[in-house]
Amino acid sequence: MTDQSSTRYAYLGPAATFTEAALIGLLTERGVLETAERIPMRSADAMLEAVRAGEVDAAVVPIENSVEGGVPATLDALTRYGRLQIVAEAVVPVRFVLAALPGTVTRETLRSYGTHPHAEAQTRLWMQRNAPQAEYRVTSSTAAAAQELAASAEPAGASAGAAGSTDLPYQAVIGPLLAAQTYGLEVLADDIGDNTLAETRFICVERPGAIPEPTGWDRTTIVVGLASDRAGALLEMLEQLSARGVNMSRIESRPTGDGLGLYQFSIDVLGHVAEARVAEALRGIHRVAGSVKFLGSYPMASATRTELNGTKKAVDPRVADDAFDRAQAWLDDVTGR
Amino acid sequence: MTDQSSTRYAYLGPAATFTEAALIGLLTERGVLETAERIPMRSADAMLEAVRAGEVDAAVVPIENSVEGGVPATLDALTRYGRLQIVAEAVVPVRFVLAALPGTVTRETLRSYGTHPHAEAQTRLWMQRNAPQAEYRVTSSTAAAAQELAASAEPAGASAGAAGSTDLPYQAVIGPLLAAQTYGLEVLADDIGDNTLAETRFICVERPGAIPEPTGWDRTTIVVGLASDRAGALLEMLEQLSARGVNMSRIESRPTGDGLGLYQFSIDVLGHVAEARVAEALRGIHRVAGSVKFLGSYPMASATRTELNGTKKAVDPRVADDAFDRAQAWLDDVTGR
Amino acid sequence: MTDQSSTRYAYLGPAATFTEAALIGLLTERGVLETAERIPMRSADAMLEAVRAGEVDAAVVPIENSVEGGVPATLDALTRYGRLQIVAEAVVPVRFVLAALPGTVTRETLRSYGTHPHAEAQTRLWMQRNAPQAEYRVTSSTAAAAQELAASAEPAGASAGAAGSTDLPYQAVIGPLLAAQTYGLEVLADDIGDNTLAETRFICVERPGAIPEPTGWDRTTIVVGLASDRAGALLEMLEQLSARGVNMSRIESRPTGDGLGLYQFSIDVLGHVAEARVAEALRGIHRVAGSVKFLGSYPMASATRTELNGTKKAVDPRVADDAFDRAQAWLDDVTGR
Amino acid sequence: MTDQSSTRYAYLGPAATFTEAALIGLLTERGVLETAERIPMRSADAMLEAVRAGEVDAAVVPIENSVEGGVPATLDALTRYGRLQIVAEAVVPVRFVLAALPGTVTRETLRSYGTHPHAEAQTRLWMQRNAPQAEYRVTSSTAAAAQELAASAEPAGASAGAAGSTDLPYQAVIGPLLAAQTYGLEVLADDIGDNTLAETRFICVERPGAIPEPTGWDRTTIVVGLASDRAGALLEMLEQLSARGVNMSRIESRPTGDGLGLYQFSIDVLGHVAEARVAEALRGIHRVAGSVKFLGSYPMASATRTELNGTKKAVDPRVADDAFDRAQAWLDDVTGR
Repeated sequence: MTDQSSTRYAYLGPAATFTEAALIGLLTERGVLETAERIPMRSADAMLEAVRAGEVDAAVVPIENSVEGGVPATLDALTRYGRLQIVAEAVVPVRFVLAALPGTVTRETLRSYGTHPHAEAQTRLWMQRNAPQAEYRVTSSTAAAAQELAASAEPAGASAGAAGSTDLPYQAVIGPLLAAQTYGLEVLADDIGDNTLAETRFICVERPGAIPEPTGWDRTTIVVGLASDRAGALLEMLEQLSARGVNMSRIESRPTGDGLGLYQFSIDVLGHVAEARVAEALRGIHRVAGSVKFLGSYPMASATRTELNGTKKAVDPRVADDAFDRAQAWLDDVTGR
Repeated sequence: MTDQSSTRYAYLGPAATFTEAALIGLLTERGVLETAERIPMRSADAMLEAVRAGEVDAAVVPIENSVEGGVPATLDALTRYGRLQIVAEAVVPVRFVLAALPGTVTRETLRSYGTHPHAEAQTRLWMQRNAPQAEYRVTSSTAAAAQELAASAEPAGASAGAAGSTDLPYQAVIGPLLAAQTYGLEVLADDIGDNTLAETRFICVERPGAIPEPTGWDRTTIVVGLASDRAGALLEMLEQLSARGVNMSRIESRPTGDGLGLYQFSIDVLGHVAEARVAEALRGIHRVAGSVKFLGSYPMASATRTELNGTKKAVDPRVADDAFDRAQAWLDDVTGR
Repeated sequence: MTDQSSTRYAYLGPAATFTEAALIGLLTERGVLETAERIPMRSADAMLEAVRAGEVDAAVVPIENSVEGGVPATLDALTRYGRLQIVAEAVVPVRFVLAALPGTVTRETLRSYGTHPHAEAQTRLWMQRNAPQAEYRVTSSTAAAAQELAASAEPAGASAGAAGSTDLPYQAVIGPLLAAQTYGLEVLADDIGDNTLAETRFICVERPGAIPEPTGWDRTTIVVGLASDRAGALLEMLEQLSARGVNMSRIESRPTGDGLGLYQFSIDVLGHVAEARVAEALRGIHRVAGSVKFLGSYPMASATRTELNGTKKAVDPRVADDAFDRAQAWLDDVTGR
Repeated sequence: MTDQSSTRYAYLGPAATFTEAALIGLLTERGVLETAERIPMRSADAMLEAVRAGEVDAAVVPIENSVEGGVPATLDALTRYGRLQIVAEAVVPVRFVLAALPGTVTRETLRSYGTHPHAEAQTRLWMQRNAPQAEYRVTSSTAAAAQELAASAEPAGASAGAAGSTDLPYQAVIGPLLAAQTYGLEVLADDIGDNTLAETRFICVERPGAIPEPTGWDRTTIVVGLASDRAGALLEMLEQLSARGVNMSRIESRPTGDGLGLYQFSIDVLGHVAEARVAEALRGIHRVAGSVKFLGSYPMASATRTELNGTKKAVDPRVADDAFDRAQAWLDDVTGR
């Protein structure tokens, strides 16, 4: 991807979601925040299809949340659109606010609120403690709820009638601060997540092209389908990683859709496919597994790198690239090649 | 649990969901359909809390869907309420209908429809092909959508005004046949799931008590938290299973909530804790893992048993109970105990 | 075994071998050097048969040499006489001398020397450097060679003829210092082993009885026959050890005698059968292997204990006895036993 | 090695041993029995040194006996002379005869017999049953005993005195039929081995050169030294084999000579280093082990091939060369190389 002025990034819309915040972070890191175009889209499927079709240059989607786990829609869409690649990731802390139309309600008088089920799950305890009288209404996204709430305050067409807020089943929303700011809502309470450590990992997906250079702090994402008729197939697959000293940072099972108990695994490993241990492990998995998709090698988010800095062990010298080189040189030598 | 007349079963409401269908199947198998009370509740959390508190005798919740995967709310609620046990399972085919108020719309004139996001995901292709003009509206459950649609047709109180349907953002619903029948809706199209093999597995949860007797076709469910600071911890845990020849039928990672990359695993294994290989494997996992919760050993659904009947290999004689007994007898003999 | 005055110990004769030195060390440690009877015998087979038949109370045989490896005759005899147990071990440094009849030859004039092939192998480099002209003659033991050399110097019966040394094919012997001293030979050179670290491990074998109490520094010896028709059988057996964190200190393959490529394994593990991790691992091996013989749990030689003292890691707490106890208590608790 | 008239083969002498029989078999297979020179030598060390120095073209030594196990002198000599390679193997049934100078003794009147300790071990039961009165005398080889017995019958120089047999400590020998025939001895009993299935495997060793072409029925021999300070090092090494589906046909521990409990392993695996699974496994072992020596890839003895023919499973398609090729092609494709 060239960072030229016309670069178009899709993200999971509407505007002002955590996903847009992640995209803003990525563009800032790349120094193209001013020139890049941000295009909200309504589903992971639609975004990846748009990337595939060349309608946009890249898409940013959430893949993993520290509270809710993997994001099934993303994982499944990635699996479906095999010929795409992940080129970057971003990690964004999840910080929720409770917001309403200015001057309409307080935390105490609130009767109902809307938000996405994931956000509801992550603020449930706070709401039970601080606004137990308020009833939850499901919405399709946190930002959408904010947008609709704001829209409900506007005069409907030429009519000078009452604000539309009475039509909406909720009086307040839970969402990112960015959403409250974007839509001119009043913040009733800030940082109301039950888990203050919560964060979400986003990935940036493009059409296949040059793989980002290894940085020494890389992640590789694959999807592995196990041959269904073999007991111990998962163990066997993990042994392909462990025989080359490759560590996993995430593993999630996703149903294949062919019946209960038939799974494929979405896996992140530490390392880059340009490193010998990762390449050999992937080839090993290709041999023993029913199927494997390579979704990219890309640098870790800078936040993660900083976090690991103190604790990350250097790569075991027995699986570093030069150990592989020496092993090959030895074998060439003794076999006279 | 005694199957007496006062037995109260909670299920994920409202009425007429797939969960109620699963519960009806279970009660029929137990011969208590007439006498048992079925109580709809609104969340897995609420139901398990009600079981724990003794307000109901059992709860039936979905745990796994062959298309959407594990049900996070159930998995997380089970983990939170550790002292509950799974005593039975039921597998129900997922069959969706498109239904509306009689005489109001046809497949061709339909502008909007409501259903739960999971149901939407499983009927998306059919809808795109057969009613591409219809827009999707998110609802909190398939049956709730049907109920609300039916309610919208009723005269609002004493008023003789127009039917409330104009207030609802959808004209039709996608849900189980049972829901259409229960709420008097007209079926516009039947069996519209994109995957006709789709099925959902439900579990029946009670307060801890006697474990169901082994039947030879049993499943055991555990939740394992891995010590976070050990590379290869998952491999090590799986080796505790494989060293005793215990096979998994499901494994799913769930975040611990303590940060990205920290997971626990929800696992089903084939076999009963009363069998030596399962008991020893669980003790082994208890030793090597950071934490482990036992959620029950219970008979497989009869459908699954029938399906496996042709293909299931007998237990490897090297890990059958009498191999354990002979090993113990041998060791007692040679050590003079 | 009771250490009463009549205790009879067989050892690999003749007198003055390293084996007798090992036995003297063991008897000294037990404080019964004065009262115990030491009986030289000519083969491991004969000794173990004598133990089995009750003709002696115990037998001391070499099992492992740091230069030559396992002692096949001992390993095979132990396997044949299954119902015997190892109750102690002793480690003796291997220190050879070159000795001759006093005044007969020097290192320079020596034309031939006799010793056991193992001793020859361990002094070959020294001899090539220091007495290259001397030819090697095979004898059945180091001490036997010394004894015969001494005997050859005695007047043959009433005859006043020349010393019998002309009948023997060697003029000097290589053997333990004890042998030279016992038979009145002159030491031409001391400590002539090529490897000054060489040592031999001996075991003390009795009829089955009470297993020595665990000391925290114990070894357990087993013989495992692998089911011949299973690929990866050795790996599978080792996994039974590793799944319980049990370490090996020795593994040797011995042919079963049924054809090339069919092996059984003589194995020492660290730990005592009274420890849960060892007991469970042995039961696991009993299940997966074709056959397994338990040959005893016994304290390590004090020399080895001292050596390990600095380096030995404490038992991994995850496989210590109380981890097993807690795992059992947990399972009993959750299953209501 | 070129099969020209001047080719010189060393073998473990003296003449008429099983080793010469194996060499005759190999030369016959190669069609060079008439032109090749057979040179007896006295030790594996001396032979391998002669190969290394170019004094002979090849050496044939025993490596494994189905009753006695690995031949330590060969294994250790191979380890010492690392830059040699095994190019062929031969398997010879072990068939012993009891033989004496014609007309001197019978089985019943025999008082003593000589043979190599290995031969003695393999005929002990027969001798106890059929000539229990005869005492065993150790000799350095079976054929040497036959040669000396024959020599003892010849007039000593010009002297017309008694036959020298009175000087020898034995009246009969146990050895190969070839030895009895070569030295003109009378066979008192044929096929007296206790184990009629006994056979010995010999290897043919040359200076490093072109590796024999793969035949589909090959063996590869390596020597692996394990890093001494790692628990589970053997398991880890075996996992390098199993991760590529490589099977072992022989594993033997040999002491490193640096102290009790420090071992290296002599290993045969099925397959040829030109096959991808073997090459990758060897490189893997090179990475994880302290040291590894490659001793050759060579065709199995034809007898073994015939034996395996019925039972040998085809190479698992997941580790066949084309599975490795496809894995490499896949990775090249997805990474755009």
